[in-house]
Amino acid sequence: MLDKLKEQVCQANLDLVAHGLVTLTWGNASGISEDRQHVVIKASGVRYDEMQPEHMVVVDLEGNVVEGNLRPSSDTPTHVLLYRNFNTIGGITHTHSQHATIFAQARLEIPCLGTTHADHFYGSVPVTRPLTEEEVSEAYELNTGQVIVERFAELDPVAMPAVLVAGHAPFAWGPTVAKSVENAVALEAVAEMALGVRQLVADPMPLESYVLDKHFLRKHGPDAYYGQVPDRNK
Amino acid sequence: MLDKLKEQVCQANLDLVAHGLVTLTWGNASGISEDRQHVVIKASGVRYDEMQPEHMVVVDLEGNVVEGNLRPSSDTPTHVLLYRNFNTIGGITHTHSQHATIFAQARLEIPCLGTTHADHFYGSVPVTRPLTEEEVSEAYELNTGQVIVERFAELDPVAMPAVLVAGHAPFAWGPTVAKSVENAVALEAVAEMALGVRQLVADPMPLESYVLDKHFLRKHGPDAYYGQVPDRNK
Amino acid sequence: MLDKLKEQVCQANLDLVAHGLVTLTWGNASGISEDRQHVVIKASGVRYDEMQPEHMVVVDLEGNVVEGNLRPSSDTPTHVLLYRNFNTIGGITHTHSQHATIFAQARLEIPCLGTTHADHFYGSVPVTRPLTEEEVSEAYELNTGQVIVERFAELDPVAMPAVLVAGHAPFAWGPTVAKSVENAVALEAVAEMALGVRQLVADPMPLESYVLDKHFLRKHGPDAYYGQVPDRNK
Amino acid sequence: MLDKLKEQVCQANLDLVAHGLVTLTWGNASGISEDRQHVVIKASGVRYDEMQPEHMVVVDLEGNVVEGNLRPSSDTPTHVLLYRNFNTIGGITHTHSQHATIFAQARLEIPCLGTTHADHFYGSVPVTRPLTEEEVSEAYELNTGQVIVERFAELDPVAMPAVLVAGHAPFAWGPTVAKSVENAVALEAVAEMALGVRQLVADPMPLESYVLDKHFLRKHGPDAYYGQVPDRNK
Repeated sequence: MLDKLKEQVCQANLDLVAHGLVTLTWGNASGISEDRQHVVIKASGVRYDEMQPEHMVVVDLEGNVVEGNLRPSSDTPTHVLLYRNFNTIGGITHTHSQHATIFAQARLEIPCLGTTHADHFYGSVPVTRPLTEEEVSEAYELNTGQVIVERFAELDPVAMPAVLVAGHAPFAWGPTVAKSVENAVALEAVAEMALGVRQLVADPMPLESYVLDKHFLRKHGPDAYYGQVPDRNK
Repeated sequence: MLDKLKEQVCQANLDLVAHGLVTLTWGNASGISEDRQHVVIKASGVRYDEMQPEHMVVVDLEGNVVEGNLRPSSDTPTHVLLYRNFNTIGGITHTHSQHATIFAQARLEIPCLGTTHADHFYGSVPVTRPLTEEEVSEAYELNTGQVIVERFAELDPVAMPAVLVAGHAPFAWGPTVAKSVENAVALEAVAEMALGVRQLVADPMPLESYVLDKHFLRKHGPDAYYGQVPDRNK
Repeated sequence: MLDKLKEQVCQANLDLVAHGLVTLTWGNASGISEDRQHVVIKASGVRYDEMQPEHMVVVDLEGNVVEGNLRPSSDTPTHVLLYRNFNTIGGITHTHSQHATIFAQARLEIPCLGTTHADHFYGSVPVTRPLTEEEVSEAYELNTGQVIVERFAELDPVAMPAVLVAGHAPFAWGPTVAKSVENAVALEAVAEMALGVRQLVADPMPLESYVLDKHFLRKHGPDAYYGQVPDRNK
Repeated sequence: MLDKLKEQVCQANLDLVAHGLVTLTWGNASGISEDRQHVVIKASGVRYDEMQPEHMVVVDLEGNVVEGNLRPSSDTPTHVLLYRNFNTIGGITHTHSQHATIFAQARLEIPCLGTTHADHFYGSVPVTRPLTEEEVSEAYELNTGQVIVERFAELDPVAMPAVLVAGHAPFAWGPTVAKSVENAVALEAVAEMALGVRQLVADPMPLESYVLDKHFLRKHGPDAYYGQVPDRNK
């Protein structure tokens, strides 16, 4: 079932490696079916150099495996919870990419300092609160999703397709699994640049809000004019 | 039309990727025809791994497409304005390369701290002023070119073949599109080194002006003696 | 003798290069035989691009060559001493990987700042004391092992599969030589991230101890649930 | 003439690229003939992807071309002067490798902070004084060699096979051109690590002198025991 989505999700996982976002097996990408009944996600701990579409696992929106006998990624409960709460997203990418993870470990937002950031993220990339000891012991991966959802109470996951989990690492998402990988790539790049700016200027000036608006909206939404085909679904 | 220039511009765009200056589709290179009537530039949002000379778009010096049905890069108005104002340049490269963009986001010039810099840039690489809200809303990409031209009121684009747009990223240029790529590569390298020097020394010593003169002039101008053929057109 | 182990050790040495952990010939990996009577280790100063299983040297637990006429790595006495003292480990990797070596040269522990660290190392990665002049002149490589063993007097090498030798570089280990390479890769990644965090925050907050417990124990020990097969031997 | 040396020098130049030490054409390697009458050096400004042994130029010890019609590297006078003054060296490598050049631009010695450094350089890697305006205008490249020789008045080029030219970049050397490349690789690595250590510790502790002695002497000189064959000529 869902053969095409399995291929897309497998390719997305391999693209994470090609983009240098994944060390060893520290990353996973998933996509949701069009009817939003099933999620396809990488199996846990599979080596990237042997990965095939048949290593993708199909789960339902409770995270139960509905096909195959491989264990899904241990982060599956986080992915599933995000799909249940963010009904505009079609794909999720989780990595421990170096610079985004540096900000997650420093528990600092990634400020919007330039148009590279504005092209993808409409404002500072937020950080969750830490999980409590109870949340960790009861249902760690599910509650990782919960603190993300809590952090987005007043944020739109379309305008802000990424988050840093405090002390952990980033999650990025998008309308498709391929777009979630692109956002993970952009997140790593803007994190690396923000770290560099901080080395030059202690308190860097955020991008002017009218430039942020301009850049985000020329790539996203009904008036987008970047690329070959206006993408009105984003 | 302009088949040879299309090949050169396509190759230049691919070289940006080979040199590690471009992430995703964040970059574009263009060249102007010998009669300075047409500009060839990358189409907007085309993937680099599928790029062919036929993805290059021909526009006139107002930025109107004169051949093909692809949209040119969204930065085309910036390129065209630069060609109209800098009549000594034959090619332009725009990237969001990490370290040059860090300086652009920090809104700091890249000081000339060594001979690597002096070999390519005759002094500090300048930063534009930010665009005003009116300039952004009226004609963002065109006005990006305008603030560059304004910044070069007393600078020679031959001696200083690059600029940082505040809060955005670098533009580099040269006598040909291939040379503009070389300057973009050099710009990224000197930005990375200048950031490193700043980590060792809070207020680094600029290169002696007589060494700057020596290095720039041994590679450029009528007395150049670097390389196999004296290049008297630079 | 020990042909399979030679292949594994040779592959591990080549993997160090593939993971970018080794410059020139600065690294070596070894494995111990199942009966813990022999150690297979890379020959000294062999080029990685010519390395074959037959360049692996078999030594006994005193470090005496028992097969072949190549000299074993000059670090052999360190490896052998660690095998004699840490009887739960099956493989050892020594590199001068950039960021782990930076911490070793700074003589600072790598603090646990995030879950990437917690997935592999159960607490701060320790640093040895410097060797004394006598220790260096008497038996340098053997005493390098001794200061590691001394540092682990109250540490479990299973829970902490790496160490930084002050002023020198890291050693990592694991149940197999392949796992020791994985730990060396993880060590370099967490060192790079810890250095980055220190650039953002002077005194970063350590990971909550209950998250450290959760992450380490979901990958290690009897209740592990990461990967396809619970690995109860780790 | 000197076909074997041309092959070695060509290979050394290509190895600089493979090791990531050279951007564009910013680097050159040379070797001296056994009778110390001729030097083989890369031609000026030749692209690395087209480089063949026939692009190597033979010059005499005054820097005059004695074979072929290509111009030698513009840095030839520096190389030739070093060969005339350092009669123990057989090959020279000049690069603008990022981190060594950062120290050259900061005009700071690279301190010996660890054994990686001690394995190759017997103490801090020195920096020259800046050239005077007269030295630059009279004979820039020759005087670059002179300030290096001046800096080595009390240093042994065998024990210290590298130097940083203030505001410029490093030169490294060795008994053969291949060894000079290895030293250039080591120099870049130790510079990168020293920069990192400085980010963790304002005033890092130098390596103990007895460890420096041990590491340098186990790889160099009559009592060396690293590698397969004791190299008594180093």
